[in-house]
Amino acid sequence: MAREINEECGVFGIYCQNHVAVAPLTYLGLFALQHRGQESSGMAVTDGRQIMLYKGTDLVPKVFSEEKLKQLKGYAAIGHVRYSTTGSNLPENAQPLVVDSSFGQVALAHNGNLTNSVELRGELTRSGAVFNTSTDTELIVNLLAQQGGDLETALVKTAQQLAGAFALVVLTRKRLIGVRDPLGFRPLVLGARPDGYLLASESCALTNLGAEVLREIQPGEMVIIDQDGVKFHKYAERQRESFCVFEYVYFARPDSNLLGQSVHQVRKRIGATLWKEAPVEADVVIAAPDSGTPAAMGFAEASGLPFEIGLLKNRYIGRTFIEPSQQLRELGVRIKLNPIGAVIRNKRIVIIDDSIVRGTTSAKIVRLLRETGAKEVHMYAASPPYLYPCFYGIDTSQGTDLVAAKYNIEEIKRLIGADTLRYLSLEGLVEAVGIQKERLCLACFTGDYPLPIRGVTSKHCFEQNGSANE
Amino acid sequence: MAREINEECGVFGIYCQNHVAVAPLTYLGLFALQHRGQESSGMAVTDGRQIMLYKGTDLVPKVFSEEKLKQLKGYAAIGHVRYSTTGSNLPENAQPLVVDSSFGQVALAHNGNLTNSVELRGELTRSGAVFNTSTDTELIVNLLAQQGGDLETALVKTAQQLAGAFALVVLTRKRLIGVRDPLGFRPLVLGARPDGYLLASESCALTNLGAEVLREIQPGEMVIIDQDGVKFHKYAERQRESFCVFEYVYFARPDSNLLGQSVHQVRKRIGATLWKEAPVEADVVIAAPDSGTPAAMGFAEASGLPFEIGLLKNRYIGRTFIEPSQQLRELGVRIKLNPIGAVIRNKRIVIIDDSIVRGTTSAKIVRLLRETGAKEVHMYAASPPYLYPCFYGIDTSQGTDLVAAKYNIEEIKRLIGADTLRYLSLEGLVEAVGIQKERLCLACFTGDYPLPIRGVTSKHCFEQNGSANE
Amino acid sequence: MAREINEECGVFGIYCQNHVAVAPLTYLGLFALQHRGQESSGMAVTDGRQIMLYKGTDLVPKVFSEEKLKQLKGYAAIGHVRYSTTGSNLPENAQPLVVDSSFGQVALAHNGNLTNSVELRGELTRSGAVFNTSTDTELIVNLLAQQGGDLETALVKTAQQLAGAFALVVLTRKRLIGVRDPLGFRPLVLGARPDGYLLASESCALTNLGAEVLREIQPGEMVIIDQDGVKFHKYAERQRESFCVFEYVYFARPDSNLLGQSVHQVRKRIGATLWKEAPVEADVVIAAPDSGTPAAMGFAEASGLPFEIGLLKNRYIGRTFIEPSQQLRELGVRIKLNPIGAVIRNKRIVIIDDSIVRGTTSAKIVRLLRETGAKEVHMYAASPPYLYPCFYGIDTSQGTDLVAAKYNIEEIKRLIGADTLRYLSLEGLVEAVGIQKERLCLACFTGDYPLPIRGVTSKHCFEQNGSANE
Amino acid sequence: MAREINEECGVFGIYCQNHVAVAPLTYLGLFALQHRGQESSGMAVTDGRQIMLYKGTDLVPKVFSEEKLKQLKGYAAIGHVRYSTTGSNLPENAQPLVVDSSFGQVALAHNGNLTNSVELRGELTRSGAVFNTSTDTELIVNLLAQQGGDLETALVKTAQQLAGAFALVVLTRKRLIGVRDPLGFRPLVLGARPDGYLLASESCALTNLGAEVLREIQPGEMVIIDQDGVKFHKYAERQRESFCVFEYVYFARPDSNLLGQSVHQVRKRIGATLWKEAPVEADVVIAAPDSGTPAAMGFAEASGLPFEIGLLKNRYIGRTFIEPSQQLRELGVRIKLNPIGAVIRNKRIVIIDDSIVRGTTSAKIVRLLRETGAKEVHMYAASPPYLYPCFYGIDTSQGTDLVAAKYNIEEIKRLIGADTLRYLSLEGLVEAVGIQKERLCLACFTGDYPLPIRGVTSKHCFEQNGSANE
Repeated sequence: MAREINEECGVFGIYCQNHVAVAPLTYLGLFALQHRGQESSGMAVTDGRQIMLYKGTDLVPKVFSEEKLKQLKGYAAIGHVRYSTTGSNLPENAQPLVVDSSFGQVALAHNGNLTNSVELRGELTRSGAVFNTSTDTELIVNLLAQQGGDLETALVKTAQQLAGAFALVVLTRKRLIGVRDPLGFRPLVLGARPDGYLLASESCALTNLGAEVLREIQPGEMVIIDQDGVKFHKYAERQRESFCVFEYVYFARPDSNLLGQSVHQVRKRIGATLWKEAPVEADVVIAAPDSGTPAAMGFAEASGLPFEIGLLKNRYIGRTFIEPSQQLRELGVRIKLNPIGAVIRNKRIVIIDDSIVRGTTSAKIVRLLRETGAKEVHMYAASPPYLYPCFYGIDTSQGTDLVAAKYNIEEIKRLIGADTLRYLSLEGLVEAVGIQKERLCLACFTGDYPLPIRGVTSKHCFEQNGSANE
Repeated sequence: MAREINEECGVFGIYCQNHVAVAPLTYLGLFALQHRGQESSGMAVTDGRQIMLYKGTDLVPKVFSEEKLKQLKGYAAIGHVRYSTTGSNLPENAQPLVVDSSFGQVALAHNGNLTNSVELRGELTRSGAVFNTSTDTELIVNLLAQQGGDLETALVKTAQQLAGAFALVVLTRKRLIGVRDPLGFRPLVLGARPDGYLLASESCALTNLGAEVLREIQPGEMVIIDQDGVKFHKYAERQRESFCVFEYVYFARPDSNLLGQSVHQVRKRIGATLWKEAPVEADVVIAAPDSGTPAAMGFAEASGLPFEIGLLKNRYIGRTFIEPSQQLRELGVRIKLNPIGAVIRNKRIVIIDDSIVRGTTSAKIVRLLRETGAKEVHMYAASPPYLYPCFYGIDTSQGTDLVAAKYNIEEIKRLIGADTLRYLSLEGLVEAVGIQKERLCLACFTGDYPLPIRGVTSKHCFEQNGSANE
Repeated sequence: MAREINEECGVFGIYCQNHVAVAPLTYLGLFALQHRGQESSGMAVTDGRQIMLYKGTDLVPKVFSEEKLKQLKGYAAIGHVRYSTTGSNLPENAQPLVVDSSFGQVALAHNGNLTNSVELRGELTRSGAVFNTSTDTELIVNLLAQQGGDLETALVKTAQQLAGAFALVVLTRKRLIGVRDPLGFRPLVLGARPDGYLLASESCALTNLGAEVLREIQPGEMVIIDQDGVKFHKYAERQRESFCVFEYVYFARPDSNLLGQSVHQVRKRIGATLWKEAPVEADVVIAAPDSGTPAAMGFAEASGLPFEIGLLKNRYIGRTFIEPSQQLRELGVRIKLNPIGAVIRNKRIVIIDDSIVRGTTSAKIVRLLRETGAKEVHMYAASPPYLYPCFYGIDTSQGTDLVAAKYNIEEIKRLIGADTLRYLSLEGLVEAVGIQKERLCLACFTGDYPLPIRGVTSKHCFEQNGSANE
Repeated sequence: MAREINEECGVFGIYCQNHVAVAPLTYLGLFALQHRGQESSGMAVTDGRQIMLYKGTDLVPKVFSEEKLKQLKGYAAIGHVRYSTTGSNLPENAQPLVVDSSFGQVALAHNGNLTNSVELRGELTRSGAVFNTSTDTELIVNLLAQQGGDLETALVKTAQQLAGAFALVVLTRKRLIGVRDPLGFRPLVLGARPDGYLLASESCALTNLGAEVLREIQPGEMVIIDQDGVKFHKYAERQRESFCVFEYVYFARPDSNLLGQSVHQVRKRIGATLWKEAPVEADVVIAAPDSGTPAAMGFAEASGLPFEIGLLKNRYIGRTFIEPSQQLRELGVRIKLNPIGAVIRNKRIVIIDDSIVRGTTSAKIVRLLRETGAKEVHMYAASPPYLYPCFYGIDTSQGTDLVAAKYNIEEIKRLIGADTLRYLSLEGLVEAVGIQKERLCLACFTGDYPLPIRGVTSKHCFEQNGSANE
């Protein structure tokens, strides 16, 4: 799929009472979540007296130098990697956000997308709040600061006013708090090391740090970690859970577990299901690298067809790579995806991609395979047709680019030039995931949104703003 | 004096209805004010639909590239250069500040220092405000956002709650506003070009842009510039005016006029007064460059002694210059101030510095002159003994380093090693400035503070902050 | 193997008579060769009147901006990516080298390592040459400049005096020339596009540019490309060819062909041969990513055991990644190689790595697999024991780190902690490569060096240099 | 004059047998010579075993960090600041140059310009030399390497083949050598500190380091400094000395002495002579800052007219300052030179500039003074009409821009718009300098070149180069 859908964000938190150097652990934790956001990286660290903040608009290892990690001394921290779902990639939009408030210094980082941000922001500005950024995170912080009582009560009241998807990590000078929205759209998992506790968007960030995975934070649950240990608080009645199925399809790292399911194994089962649903005569099964690889292996195993590496992803492609000039445009995909002639030539190829969103990459891949000598190209999508935009944290909220929303499958097949085009069925997906359908958000495939969408919440909606009173 | 007192800030504003490129003019205006602040530079530009902001922690020409100036299209702008009086040199403390509020987008830049910021910040956080920075500017913006009514009314109410020194420039999508505090500590002057109006901390920024100087904004006055032209509004009863006399002594650029007086001429008159007050037998008059030069010239003229260049300031000294290592420390002043042997050797030298604050530079200069062969060194300060810290925008607010607060003149003379040490008298200063004593703030020399100082307002006072409720 | 052996260099050349923008093609060609050298990148471009040079010590996309590529106008170019075999990673050691000489401007880039550089450098300095760098390349250029006759003749005479491995690309204002050493240690291949000719270290750089692969330059052959077309010149009698077998084992990109053999297919055959030579009872076959993957797939196919992804290579690991501090050292390998628990737990694992050089990475991998729950770990090396240092362009020339040179296989097995340790046999390797043994350099496995090694030619040997005459 | 003539270069050398940290001293020495070249800075340091080199294309404090100075351990060093007279501002053109040769490592830095570089370069390439740069310095190094015998003999033979202006500092692993050309165009002075010896282009670099000035190196003299002390060697018969008079007029720093004359005092005498030659009725004397200031002071003293500061040079103007866009072009000079209205308005102004080369700056200054309200503007040049290009190290070698070569004085007066235009007479200049006319090079004023100019030696002459043999 090659980055047609952008990932959202990753959050991380750590509390180690007797530790003075949580910054390097936070660095490694964020690095393990880098696939969830590459635009900015940041962490806030407390030493009990003060919260220090450092962030930048780059990858984790580019933002944090060894010297900087040494300066960020403390025993608790939160961190964030970001792909922007609201707000542009401006330095001030990087997270965490640290503010001084009636609760003293508070740091906050957020994964998800609110659906009532327009109303909330209107109410807050009317009551005198000012906004420096266009992020949901600043909105949450202002809402929090306007609540009375102690911080915990205020956080509960705040969470109860938020609608949409949110997995939050909050840091005060002495406490680490995690909050997950009542429908549990976005993942948040609790872990333990001998010397403390951790929170992370995905279990891979815990296992990579040698930590034990304790359990997922429940939808509508808050966890408070301080010198007295861990305390759970259910702040919302459990309604229908709505965990994002696309985490299995594309976002999550294969070595993570989500709701008890290994992401890698789910993707292999998806491949096997694809074969069951749509067997085909072919010589070899390949993947659109790297995200299609487990499904392709599952497909090959189920079918008995050989799994092969037909396309290599160039491992040096990065942010600074210059797209070739207009006249060399056709070379672009060849530079990024290197076909292995010996595998493809004169073969009937099954190629499996995790999903087809805009369809442009699929068309390029099919053409590249044919130019390399493929006899037939059978394209399989390891998910159902992507029909509806997401408003809960995935950057397809405009919806205008979704090829499956505009064309039927036969038309898409012709557009991308494949001999066959098959999508996974919704039932097949749910079965492969291994979670009851009721616990999953499948809105992007079904249009059945678990939460109403009030007002437009496009990514840039708060960046140009007038006012009547002015 | 060589940077023993740090300058404060400079503000600039421009409104040119039919102009689409005010950014280059703002760039030049800020550049003319660079002497007032070298730590950060920023501007906010409106095209009528939206306010764009760009700032950085460097000199004006380093922050703004040609390409950036082209991108900042608009017909009105405000700008700021900063030396920090509150808050460290952090990127987020750079100004202007642009927020989204109940008045829509508002940009604000500030020169001065509030004396009631602790109380105001306390009240604001208690009412739910959050603070990202430790600057007075963010405090003013939050106070503004909590007022009702239209922006003009709200600004008046805000200004009436502020105590201390403030010269503000405010930009909305369609309007430029200037506000000066009721005592008029800091300067703010209005100018005109054929195509619009300008505001600046000093007249040099207007004349350098080929603009006509109209008049100074009065203490307690607000000026509103929009498509209907210029409107003045007196928001505070005129009390005793208290214009900072140190602007004449050191801060302002010699080609500026303040309250109708040429800064260069005031400094020359100071030199002449010095001679009148304390004539001396000597061979030559030199200046501690560059700030002592006009006074030295005035002294020479009045005395008939020859004015000479005895010390050259190395023009390549800048932020990146490395102080020599410990063993080469004694070379430091020689590298920065280059003595001309032919002028100094075997001469009785009168050297004039604008002021003596900590005294350490004076001691180095005297020693350097003696090593170069001076027969006698007579040190003259072109201002009275600096005895009391400033709380209205100059960074000496600790007061602990003020040599004249700890020693008498005879002791200081011995400390710096001069044959003579003479200060200007207070009366002499006032006479040379040419403004009635009642209109000047002379607190740093007299301790007679025009406004009470409530609570500590040191530069870093908001950077470590706890809270009872946490 | 994870970078225990460092790759050498890659060269590229292009000549397109009627083209004015070969720089973007050279950029893409170098990018396709990036795996051969990541320390510096450079290109020299001629427009017929002058040769322009641009280079830097970074990856290709970091060194070349779009603007820079536009400035480098011309119809012929050479380029180079470098991992240093002689000389440190200093800016001046980056290639190509462009000099002004009796032949006018000449640019030269080199892949390989000379074995008589000490003698040649001594002779040249004695005859008055001076050296700015410690590279073989500067030596070749000086040798060339001291020959008489026309450039072609001089190049032949120069090549005849060089001993060792060299694949050269040379650019004059009007000509592109390629030279391969008489034993053909390093690859160099010729391609064609409709508008011109190309030279590259590997065929992948040609196919990625949509070019046709014509043929490899022969050992001891020179190719001259100019407005009259392509001309071949055999400058040395064919002796025994000695093509580096490690290009198949590790260096070359899987989508390249070398001496007619697909690198990917050779590696798959190696895996199959490994199984034939040493079958094992196990549950699953995995690779040390990414270089062990094709052999692991070949092993799985031959054995009927399932191929799986047990270790994921973190795709964000790069130059700026900070190794965790001492106390977090054990987390290092986990961050780089992410184990998929669901694949490994309770399984008997066959893991296949391309080679074992120092053995330290192998030990970390075995430990990581056991910690993740592997029941047994059977380690297979897809090449014979690496026993002897290379003097022909691979950076193992010290030889002191080669684990197989110090321990026998049983000892290495214990050192790395595996249940089984098996190496490919030499015969198995040759058979899998599919080239007659006589045409291959197998010195690193056999110690049978095709060329005598005169004197020490370590990487830094020319960086500290004294002299008797001084 | 405002940089219409570009300064050339500055060289520095130091040898302190028992010192291990000469790099910081070299840093300070180069910093004191920064006015002689701002394009690149570099130093080569020897610790007795090896010469280390570091250089960059920026000001001294930007190129050398504290850490870098610590790394450059050694007891002897040479350094260079450069404005390019031959060769563009390319990194590889920065000096010193360090090469490995038959004499071992040799570092060399050069101030001046050769007049036989075309012939020498031709001879050297024909004999097999290659050139990486377009500098005279590389040429000298190659010529040196081709001499036989020991280094000292070879240096003498080399110097005897060079024609033109050259002040060289040479460093081997154990020795520091200085060479001045037979006519002594460029300055080179020897100093001593308790722990060793120094060489510098100007005495200010010695006095700033607290060193004693011993004497100038004589024309045609070589000085060798090593563990045996200082040895002088006269390698050329003294012919007519030809010291560059423009060093007094503009290049040298006022606190330097040249041939025993204080530069500051010479410039003051020039001002007095100007008044004697051409008295005028006026109200005030001002300088074109900063280079015209001493002459203006001398003029004022001689005439009895008051000296004033009428134009302030903006001290933040630097390399990154953006020239205003086309429509703001007229503001340019106002931004750089800030007029003090109170000094200029309604006055008859005498303004003194060190020289008038192209005349464009003079025209801008006159216009600025008139716009500020000057009643009359009398422009005085503190040197004779600049008529002939320099081929000995000053960058006016094209000669096409010299206004005095194209127009007579009356015409120039009209072009720049002054009421009066007066130049210093040649005799007046020589008299004020206080050196016999025969010892000075006055070629730029008289056309009487002390050395014949063979061939074109423009700044870029070696950057595009073809060849017959190619």
